[in-house]
Amino acid sequence: MAVESSPAPLDASRLEINAVPNPDPAPDIDTPDVMNVKTFTDRMITASWTEERGWSNPQVVPYGPISLMPSASALQYATQCFEGMKVFRGYDGRLRLFRPLYNCERMLKSATRISLPAFDPRELLKLIHKLCELEAPKWLPKNKPGSALYLRPTMIGSDSSLGFKVPEEAQLYIFMVYWPGPKLVTENGGAALQAGTRLLASSVSAVSAWPGGTGSAKVGGNYGATLAEHGLAKKQGYDQVLWLFGPDRQITEAGATNIFVIWKTLSGALQMVTPPLDKDGLILAGNTRRSIIELARDMFSVETASKELQCEVLERKITMSEVEEASSNGRLMSVFVVGTAFWIQEVSEIGFNGESIKVNIGVTTHVPLLRERMTEIMFGKRESDWVDIVQES
Amino acid sequence: MAVESSPAPLDASRLEINAVPNPDPAPDIDTPDVMNVKTFTDRMITASWTEERGWSNPQVVPYGPISLMPSASALQYATQCFEGMKVFRGYDGRLRLFRPLYNCERMLKSATRISLPAFDPRELLKLIHKLCELEAPKWLPKNKPGSALYLRPTMIGSDSSLGFKVPEEAQLYIFMVYWPGPKLVTENGGAALQAGTRLLASSVSAVSAWPGGTGSAKVGGNYGATLAEHGLAKKQGYDQVLWLFGPDRQITEAGATNIFVIWKTLSGALQMVTPPLDKDGLILAGNTRRSIIELARDMFSVETASKELQCEVLERKITMSEVEEASSNGRLMSVFVVGTAFWIQEVSEIGFNGESIKVNIGVTTHVPLLRERMTEIMFGKRESDWVDIVQES
Repeated sequence: MAVESSPAPLDASRLEINAVPNPDPAPDIDTPDVMNVKTFTDRMITASWTEERGWSNPQVVPYGPISLMPSASALQYATQCFEGMKVFRGYDGRLRLFRPLYNCERMLKSATRISLPAFDPRELLKLIHKLCELEAPKWLPKNKPGSALYLRPTMIGSDSSLGFKVPEEAQLYIFMVYWPGPKLVTENGGAALQAGTRLLASSVSAVSAWPGGTGSAKVGGNYGATLAEHGLAKKQGYDQVLWLFGPDRQITEAGATNIFVIWKTLSGALQMVTPPLDKDGLILAGNTRRSIIELARDMFSVETASKELQCEVLERKITMSEVEEASSNGRLMSVFVVGTAFWIQEVSEIGFNGESIKVNIGVTTHVPLLRERMTEIMFGKRESDWVDIVQES
Repeated sequence: MAVESSPAPLDASRLEINAVPNPDPAPDIDTPDVMNVKTFTDRMITASWTEERGWSNPQVVPYGPISLMPSASALQYATQCFEGMKVFRGYDGRLRLFRPLYNCERMLKSATRISLPAFDPRELLKLIHKLCELEAPKWLPKNKPGSALYLRPTMIGSDSSLGFKVPEEAQLYIFMVYWPGPKLVTENGGAALQAGTRLLASSVSAVSAWPGGTGSAKVGGNYGATLAEHGLAKKQGYDQVLWLFGPDRQITEAGATNIFVIWKTLSGALQMVTPPLDKDGLILAGNTRRSIIELARDMFSVETASKELQCEVLERKITMSEVEEASSNGRLMSVFVVGTAFWIQEVSEIGFNGESIKVNIGVTTHVPLLRERMTEIMFGKRESDWVDIVQES
């Protein structure tokens, strides 16, 4: 009797290592290629999928070009999704990932949203651990604590049919890159200060995400379409677009980061607010975002914090008129943006309707305190169950 | 004195032919590969662009895989756009393109929207002519009038930087494929009848386009994100999603086609309506759409048409409640969808809110008459300045 084989799952235990590191030393982190985000490590992990056979054995291969038909689904219909995470070399010599299962689970959600195949997020996490273990000796050596590499798991629809349909073939690849600045730590290992970022509010005619769209998934289509507005902001000397939504000009995200506002309420109490992850799906559920919320609730609670640090943390809708009003009444204390790639950066100015809302940096110490705590966790100066230790042989 | 050279424009006169046709005969059009939209012609035209040097000389090369870094902008951030057009072998033996400059101009608009480089649309058109001339002898032979090939000009951001920015490198490629069904013409060269298409209205939580988004551009990000809802419709036995927008459930598009409704007004006059190309940018400005509007205004005017064919043609907002009301009052005469790939298809049913709105096919003859006229123009049975004749050597 013939046995029907079911499609194979993604299985990290079947990893095949088919590449050794390039013997050349890793480049300095201030070379032009690093600044241009073009310095990738020597090797990547790939796995291919077909509807019929499921996932292939994952492979460690040299980082390099992939081959796709011009008709490939990912190139024609943007069936693509990715994740962004970092691996850190700690001051205790150990290698850490920051809440990485969260990213792997979000990758599955993004893949599902864009009609790419499913996988067990724990298997993806094992592959990420393995790649870190293989690449770290050269790229994050133990004698360089305080350094980090950026990881980019990516999945694309590689089906060569030009028909508009769910891809029957896909590719997963995980690769690593030096992500230039901001500096995470100072020479002596403290959290580095960050310069103020300048945001320009999006025009009424430019929208990055909408209810029923893909704003809560990390899919390529969310990004390319925002480059035009981003370019307009850059031309006017701003760093990022502050993406607003709806006639009441709700704040959603800034560039590709989540955003927080610290203001005083009319009764004088401090509040830290960030837009909610509601059913509209306008906001990406950032790993840094949720960590900042959890840390702030712990560090700035009535029970733990000094009087001047006590701060309620709320996920709620924020409109530009609220920010304007807080600013004009002297109640706007801090605005900051957070994300894996761009870290935790304070905002010094928001351009809106031809006006400039200035935000003084340093009025409160919440952001430096959060940055310091995050850095301590990531680089092993503080015990935390938020980190995975990467086992190195 | 050093002369700064400005970036080179796309220049069809610099085309280099670096491939000959595969000597194998073209496959039959009913093979599985054709049905799966995987039968491409032997050669494609490519050109590469860098911000510094501009466009390379275009090249005719064998159709085959392209090489991209895993970090390529098109794969990570969906910097990609495309066009869809057809080339027809006429009953007079000549090869025709249907209003092709319109597609080339739209391609420029899409490229600009998604931050890809500009080019002269007339140069793109010359390259398309050339590819048709080269590939037609084998793939659209003169002894097979009534046949057609689908052309897919594509542009992608090939920049290998993982940084989120406007791509500094891009690739253009133009390739051709057999597009399976619907049959355009019958054995004796008349316009083929089409079976009724069944549409399922999108749910409130699924939205394909939004004001300020990319709905009016032909970019990949518009497509992949709609596959999930498309899959739900297919599972329920429908052919395409009818994309609605807003609380008043406006009709926008169906699948990747434009949509028309013919109804009787309360005073009993026939009207043909289609959603407008307004500033919200929800609707793709289809080439077939505009041609149908222009033809219908000509063919069904008070001056030219018999009493029962006279029909006013309007671009205006259409809501589902209007369609429901027209249906229940017996005023709904025809619904049809149009597009280059899917041609002109009558709709037999619309699923909406758990109900089924049936549309009888054949109540009016407007759609068959439009289809016949379009076919006559495309295959050279009727003179028209809408077609470009491809010069063959």
